[in-house]
Amino acid sequence: MRILLINPNTTPEITELVAGHARTIAGQGVEIVPATGRFGARYISTRAAAAIAAHAALDGLAEHGKGCDGVYLACFGDPGLLALKEVSAVPVVGMAEASCHLACMLGRRFSIVTGGERWIPMLEEFVAGQGLSERLAGIRTVAPTGGEIARDREGALALLAEACRRCAEEDGADVVILGGAALAGLAGRLASEVPVPLICSVEAGMRAAVALARQGRTAPSGACPPTASVGLSEALARLLSRR
Amino acid sequence: MRILLINPNTTPEITELVAGHARTIAGQGVEIVPATGRFGARYISTRAAAAIAAHAALDGLAEHGKGCDGVYLACFGDPGLLALKEVSAVPVVGMAEASCHLACMLGRRFSIVTGGERWIPMLEEFVAGQGLSERLAGIRTVAPTGGEIARDREGALALLAEACRRCAEEDGADVVILGGAALAGLAGRLASEVPVPLICSVEAGMRAAVALARQGRTAPSGACPPTASVGLSEALARLLSRR
Amino acid sequence: MRILLINPNTTPEITELVAGHARTIAGQGVEIVPATGRFGARYISTRAAAAIAAHAALDGLAEHGKGCDGVYLACFGDPGLLALKEVSAVPVVGMAEASCHLACMLGRRFSIVTGGERWIPMLEEFVAGQGLSERLAGIRTVAPTGGEIARDREGALALLAEACRRCAEEDGADVVILGGAALAGLAGRLASEVPVPLICSVEAGMRAAVALARQGRTAPSGACPPTASVGLSEALARLLSRR
Amino acid sequence: MRILLINPNTTPEITELVAGHARTIAGQGVEIVPATGRFGARYISTRAAAAIAAHAALDGLAEHGKGCDGVYLACFGDPGLLALKEVSAVPVVGMAEASCHLACMLGRRFSIVTGGERWIPMLEEFVAGQGLSERLAGIRTVAPTGGEIARDREGALALLAEACRRCAEEDGADVVILGGAALAGLAGRLASEVPVPLICSVEAGMRAAVALARQGRTAPSGACPPTASVGLSEALARLLSRR
Amino acid sequence: MRILLINPNTTPEITELVAGHARTIAGQGVEIVPATGRFGARYISTRAAAAIAAHAALDGLAEHGKGCDGVYLACFGDPGLLALKEVSAVPVVGMAEASCHLACMLGRRFSIVTGGERWIPMLEEFVAGQGLSERLAGIRTVAPTGGEIARDREGALALLAEACRRCAEEDGADVVILGGAALAGLAGRLASEVPVPLICSVEAGMRAAVALARQGRTAPSGACPPTASVGLSEALARLLSRR
Amino acid sequence: MRILLINPNTTPEITELVAGHARTIAGQGVEIVPATGRFGARYISTRAAAAIAAHAALDGLAEHGKGCDGVYLACFGDPGLLALKEVSAVPVVGMAEASCHLACMLGRRFSIVTGGERWIPMLEEFVAGQGLSERLAGIRTVAPTGGEIARDREGALALLAEACRRCAEEDGADVVILGGAALAGLAGRLASEVPVPLICSVEAGMRAAVALARQGRTAPSGACPPTASVGLSEALARLLSRR
Repeated sequence: MRILLINPNTTPEITELVAGHARTIAGQGVEIVPATGRFGARYISTRAAAAIAAHAALDGLAEHGKGCDGVYLACFGDPGLLALKEVSAVPVVGMAEASCHLACMLGRRFSIVTGGERWIPMLEEFVAGQGLSERLAGIRTVAPTGGEIARDREGALALLAEACRRCAEEDGADVVILGGAALAGLAGRLASEVPVPLICSVEAGMRAAVALARQGRTAPSGACPPTASVGLSEALARLLSRR
Repeated sequence: MRILLINPNTTPEITELVAGHARTIAGQGVEIVPATGRFGARYISTRAAAAIAAHAALDGLAEHGKGCDGVYLACFGDPGLLALKEVSAVPVVGMAEASCHLACMLGRRFSIVTGGERWIPMLEEFVAGQGLSERLAGIRTVAPTGGEIARDREGALALLAEACRRCAEEDGADVVILGGAALAGLAGRLASEVPVPLICSVEAGMRAAVALARQGRTAPSGACPPTASVGLSEALARLLSRR
Repeated sequence: MRILLINPNTTPEITELVAGHARTIAGQGVEIVPATGRFGARYISTRAAAAIAAHAALDGLAEHGKGCDGVYLACFGDPGLLALKEVSAVPVVGMAEASCHLACMLGRRFSIVTGGERWIPMLEEFVAGQGLSERLAGIRTVAPTGGEIARDREGALALLAEACRRCAEEDGADVVILGGAALAGLAGRLASEVPVPLICSVEAGMRAAVALARQGRTAPSGACPPTASVGLSEALARLLSRR
Repeated sequence: MRILLINPNTTPEITELVAGHARTIAGQGVEIVPATGRFGARYISTRAAAAIAAHAALDGLAEHGKGCDGVYLACFGDPGLLALKEVSAVPVVGMAEASCHLACMLGRRFSIVTGGERWIPMLEEFVAGQGLSERLAGIRTVAPTGGEIARDREGALALLAEACRRCAEEDGADVVILGGAALAGLAGRLASEVPVPLICSVEAGMRAAVALARQGRTAPSGACPPTASVGLSEALARLLSRR
Repeated sequence: MRILLINPNTTPEITELVAGHARTIAGQGVEIVPATGRFGARYISTRAAAAIAAHAALDGLAEHGKGCDGVYLACFGDPGLLALKEVSAVPVVGMAEASCHLACMLGRRFSIVTGGERWIPMLEEFVAGQGLSERLAGIRTVAPTGGEIARDREGALALLAEACRRCAEEDGADVVILGGAALAGLAGRLASEVPVPLICSVEAGMRAAVALARQGRTAPSGACPPTASVGLSEALARLLSRR
Repeated sequence: MRILLINPNTTPEITELVAGHARTIAGQGVEIVPATGRFGARYISTRAAAAIAAHAALDGLAEHGKGCDGVYLACFGDPGLLALKEVSAVPVVGMAEASCHLACMLGRRFSIVTGGERWIPMLEEFVAGQGLSERLAGIRTVAPTGGEIARDREGALALLAEACRRCAEEDGADVVILGGAALAGLAGRLASEVPVPLICSVEAGMRAAVALARQGRTAPSGACPPTASVGLSEALARLLSRR
């Protein structure tokens, strides 16, 4: 089984970090095909960067999706998620999407901890779009963005632990999602310092992508009209036009 | 890995049906420990039966939970789900819970098809309790209850297919959950007759139970006070009192 | 007129406390038939205890309901309320249900004060199930549980007064419900210390039970199928099977 | 005990009809003081008429409230309800308010049947203002307005019965409110023709008014500043200025 | 083009203040016809005063609306707004209504700052009635009422600036509405002291009234029945009866 | 005053159609600077096309925004709206955004009519994102997409009129938005055939863009960090990096 792992951040080191951690979870027989965004922000931390990333994620699917059995949109906040689901012939799962639904099975109310304060309203809207606002205890960010955390993960541990603890103790979260590609694997290191379960978003997304790819079926695309376009990559133009 | 599969219906044939299908999904290295409700309705199809089933599910956990790594509450509608999660030392997943969250990853709006019309308000409340009302396209029931379907699965196929089709075509569902222990495995047989993906609730629950058991951690129970009781089974009284 | 007062806690002293206070309110011509839970927690303060109590309440109705004109489920949080309404031939009212609707007529937003912090999420869900979340200013608990308060009511007065005051002053409640069988009659003693009206949940429930019993009609049960069962008390099995 | 019954319609015959039916319910020792609106629509069936009626209800309270132990705003839709509660020294209950909260104790979802189609959005907003939209199955109106029904109650019976039946059979209502002063007492005559319980709004309001007057306490008005005014009745100006 | 500016407060000085500021915004070719409430509170700051003001606003429309192309209900909180829209043959805009919808285009979440603490629940309900509760960051009031601010605008500036800053810094508002006739024009003076955009409610309402009057069309009133009445001004009685 | 009119569809004829109609509304002294999307779908009618259009709209702002006083995102559905607001130094208004808020001032519940059925869920989500779901009566589409309507506007008139009528008569809309660049100016032609007011989305957006540009102030961008990127147009990279 092959899973296309799309990192719409344009920093290959982040892709390697995520793909590396994802491989430890994927299990035997699962090949991960990593794809880094061709254009857009080095690290997505604004609405404008996220909007561009949705296009980059579609571009990545068109370029690298051939022969894959599932797609893992490996950027917390899931830019372009519904558009990918619309055009993909195989199941697509987003990192935040999978984390939120997993969190709902582990506790009554969940919190999210991530890097970069501008993500707060964007993630609130993401959770609302999932219909899960009632389940959300809150969102806390640490000052360094995901990009900054990726460059100094050790330095961010204490800040992240503190934020997770406050989710549990002040916001009433039963479970906390450590969200973001740059935080891959940190949940395990922080678990002993936080009084509620921690979810590693990279793991949650990877497991869900494999599970959905195993089940295989996606929504039918019969009604989606072929779309003529200009100025897109050849692969993306072809993807849009053949539907 | 051992998963306790609790069927709070008091009909052993249903337990065998569910456990049998669950075994085909569980994969190697997963042992399923089936437990049938000791008391309560033969087939749960009313609020009163569901209320009693919550007690029976707790009783089953207390009696058979020892040595298990996870608990699968294998009755669609998940009677006693939050109470089981409260007292269990290992992860607990409900059949409807897992199905609803999976459905959210497969489509924007999901429908539920099950047997017995009295389940409609009960499942509406269940979905609302999950915070997922916005994602629900609708609930349709066929006239035979789950118990009746279990006794004549072939005879129910046409009715179920018709209900599923109407979920897609009239209610706008992107994905349909075939809910209920008695419907184990029917999704595969109906898939070709319905224009949107079908979820087998028995499978969805089993996969989620294994996934959560693998991750292992549950909410801490520190704050849950030991409870003195009278008139319960020795095992259940012990479970409540030691917490 | 006879009102069956079901206390699903299994402590007879609590039943006596509630029934005694209820008799002072019931007025002439109203006979109260008290019934204590046959099995379950001494004092309900967890989800597991509440789940078992729903069964015990049904059991109590089946055993003692004969000849009654109404049923008063006298445990704040109302375990089994909808199941009782489903199977009862006479009107059923819950203590929390009646208190919340009365509170809505006395103020724009109400708060609840009760004993035992684990009730907070359970009561939030109860209020949401009533559709009244928008009217809820908040829930505050004092550390002792209802059971502990019942054993030392004098000692709890100052704590309860403080909690009620904070509901009004910090949470903006226009009216406060003193919820719980163990708090029967304390509203009158605390009224002068709190700047907004206090509702005694025992009184609110009793008045509503009498009022509904006077009006008499309940929802028709025609559609509720008779349910075969195993392992229940003879009375409960009969109640389920004859419907 | 004296209850001020305010009919803000300006038709004395309606006041007599409501007060007459209310007296049959009030019980011994309850005196009803009827007050008809001094100005405004003969029969309230538009937003403009309802807005004026709120002023007329305040005017009626100021003129006739002295010595009363409770106030019953006897017009379904409850124009001026919150303003009356703000200025009254004794408890105030509205006819629609009391009916909706009673309905919630009799069934999961309730419907309203009344006269005059323009009431539909107004009542939807009223129910939303009560926070009860989730409990509302629907609102159906018959073509004649309340005023027209008052003049020919026999002629409206078949239409009302038909509307009530459709609430139960098409909208899924568990209980139906027959709303409106002009429909006083018709619930009893229609009960046998409708498969779910019917609530007479006049009775529901009267019972609640007596119950609240018995309990006596209202929200404190300390914070409400005295208001200088011009052009109001002497009594109303005094009521506003002394607070 | 003529715009009827209705101030349902009964203080002519407030009308002059609002109309004067509105004229600076209206632009050439727009004539403002000011109308002060004939009866009711000098300054509206309670529910009772607002209820009476709705009647006074209708009265003002009936008396002065002839020949106008649009109606501006120039009292923040918009008493009688929907009733005016129902009976008016030309477009009607409320000051709070226009401010809230403008605020939604300037930021994700808005706050309101006004005078007199009793407006808080009234404005919360107004915003909920507009369906905009999700967009509301909060409401803050300064202690002086609108009437008191009108008499000492300089003295209120520091308090208002402080409240606006806290809306941005503590409540997360992206934009703040300075609401109230008495605050006409103060937004410009406070803008430099607040880190987010300020909306002057008087201006927002005036601009919207002109814009809607230009577009001209209103909802058809065909279905609104003529209403017989007693005790109203001749003009208002005529307005209600001819519809 | 200069308004940048961004059409993220990549069809210049649509830009000309919209800009032409917008000029008739803009009034003297308003210059419209039209910009067509450089890349993406010829006509946006899928989620993938809308996702790419958000990037194209940002690209258009970066390329052509210099010297403009306001930005009009002239594509119904407003792809990239919040991202444009985030990075723009001048006010930004979307066509659907402005239409929905205007509709709220013209009626209690509004409907949307547009071309291409795949817009229905996308617009439902847009309206929910605006917090206006409660105000939405429904969305109806005609079979031809916006692109097809643009090529044969006469041929679409009857279909559009029929859809608008059904919004009013079946869905209870008080006002209908004719949404879409391709429908510019058709509202005037259809008005006499529909019993409720019609809003031309092109006009509503244009008026709002001018109004906001006049007021000038936008949300401060202080907190938005400069973003490094790769692979974007030089202008867009510069816009992101300087912030």
